[in-house]
Amino acid sequence: MPVGASSDWTEAAAFAAALADAAAPVALRYFRQPLAIEDKPDSSPVTIADRTVERLLRGMIRERFPADGVLGEEHGGEALDSERVWVLDPIDGTKSFISGMPTFGLLVALLDRGRPVLGLVDHPALKERWLGTAGAPTLWNGRPCRARDCRHLAAAMLYATSPDIFAGADREPFERVSRSARMRRFGGDCFAYALLAGGCIDAVVEAGLQPYDYLPLVPVIEGAGGVITDWSGERLGLGSDGRVAAAATRELHAEIVDRLNS
Amino acid sequence: MPVGASSDWTEAAAFAAALADAAAPVALRYFRQPLAIEDKPDSSPVTIADRTVERLLRGMIRERFPADGVLGEEHGGEALDSERVWVLDPIDGTKSFISGMPTFGLLVALLDRGRPVLGLVDHPALKERWLGTAGAPTLWNGRPCRARDCRHLAAAMLYATSPDIFAGADREPFERVSRSARMRRFGGDCFAYALLAGGCIDAVVEAGLQPYDYLPLVPVIEGAGGVITDWSGERLGLGSDGRVAAAATRELHAEIVDRLNS
Repeated sequence: MPVGASSDWTEAAAFAAALADAAAPVALRYFRQPLAIEDKPDSSPVTIADRTVERLLRGMIRERFPADGVLGEEHGGEALDSERVWVLDPIDGTKSFISGMPTFGLLVALLDRGRPVLGLVDHPALKERWLGTAGAPTLWNGRPCRARDCRHLAAAMLYATSPDIFAGADREPFERVSRSARMRRFGGDCFAYALLAGGCIDAVVEAGLQPYDYLPLVPVIEGAGGVITDWSGERLGLGSDGRVAAAATRELHAEIVDRLNS
Repeated sequence: MPVGASSDWTEAAAFAAALADAAAPVALRYFRQPLAIEDKPDSSPVTIADRTVERLLRGMIRERFPADGVLGEEHGGEALDSERVWVLDPIDGTKSFISGMPTFGLLVALLDRGRPVLGLVDHPALKERWLGTAGAPTLWNGRPCRARDCRHLAAAMLYATSPDIFAGADREPFERVSRSARMRRFGGDCFAYALLAGGCIDAVVEAGLQPYDYLPLVPVIEGAGGVITDWSGERLGLGSDGRVAAAATRELHAEIVDRLNS
């Protein structure tokens, strides 16, 4: 790691925390209120809350780091060829948000030449925050956290947001893996990955994710000692296919990737 | 309603709140801590947290209302032929509890000659409580709440805890109904019913429930203007078959029951 790089991420981490602090009251103002729900072309829902939070965060980034690029779920990409790119999902788990479930979260990543070096997962309704920066332990509400030592799928608690995210040929590998786990459970959105980093569950297997869904998770999971890749075991990047396998240990991750592809 | 009955339930409601106040710190002491997890004969998990909370509550009931019967998930039934029977699920959503998800809850019902006249759903990790008593509006954190005015499945947000609760022939009717909803979502345990009473979602359809899972929900849903029955549209009682259909309005409930049986 080049000298100075770590302190750059410290500054970025403080800024990411400021983004989350600013976003939280806006999201909570709309939470459990009657909202018009629009279905996007991919039939995922969006509300004024998603758009308002993202606009606020993009404004803060533009003002503080005008040279950086931004990719957001609701308002697209700007200057994506910049050395640094911020990636934003203003409300991950919009279906939870619009149904009063407090597990929705804000996701922020900072990419340094395409590599996620900072990830933030913030749950304003739960007042829980995870922050990962490359080369440092992930912080859960400011304290270092660690994924637990589960090395076998037969002993693992595995989460996915919904069986309905596995379209077509993705369904069968997911069923094969998840039914071999000690326990499989649905729901959670980004909160499931945060619980993995926090040592509460052991694995998350999903598909159909977008870069703003999965890139912020990479530093959070890796900084807690876990492993997160695509279903082939390849590092996640802007161009990944949206299939994600995250696990508490290298051994468990290898078993999951192996079974996904067997 | 006989004179005095309502005030009897007021006293019982204050006692139910005292049960929840006593249970909360005990449940939270075990939450997100390493726990030995035992699989019961029905393969549902149980921990020392479930058993400790239930023992505490049974002791409080025995001391305050020695003539009342008690039915609890972990320690069985006592004096079930009493006029009044308390029904307890110390930790509904043990799978959530053991995986760090804060949506688990305490469930308490009071049966008066078999009829649930009081229901309490308490989520200590979320600090949210719903209390329903027959003939009075359901209270959400002490304030009256109301299910919303959704009358058609095509407009409804529908929850179920997991697709895995629908065994054998229960699967197809659930798929038929849930895929006709505007949105279907998994996860939530008893919290989904509480969100229905709170006007956040519109329907919950489940199977495989036990009396301590569903009886406490009846006064909570009905006191918020909603409808909750078995899949045939019959009132829920100790002898129901564990299939539950809850909806925000009579019209939506009728459509769901109709489709479950078509």
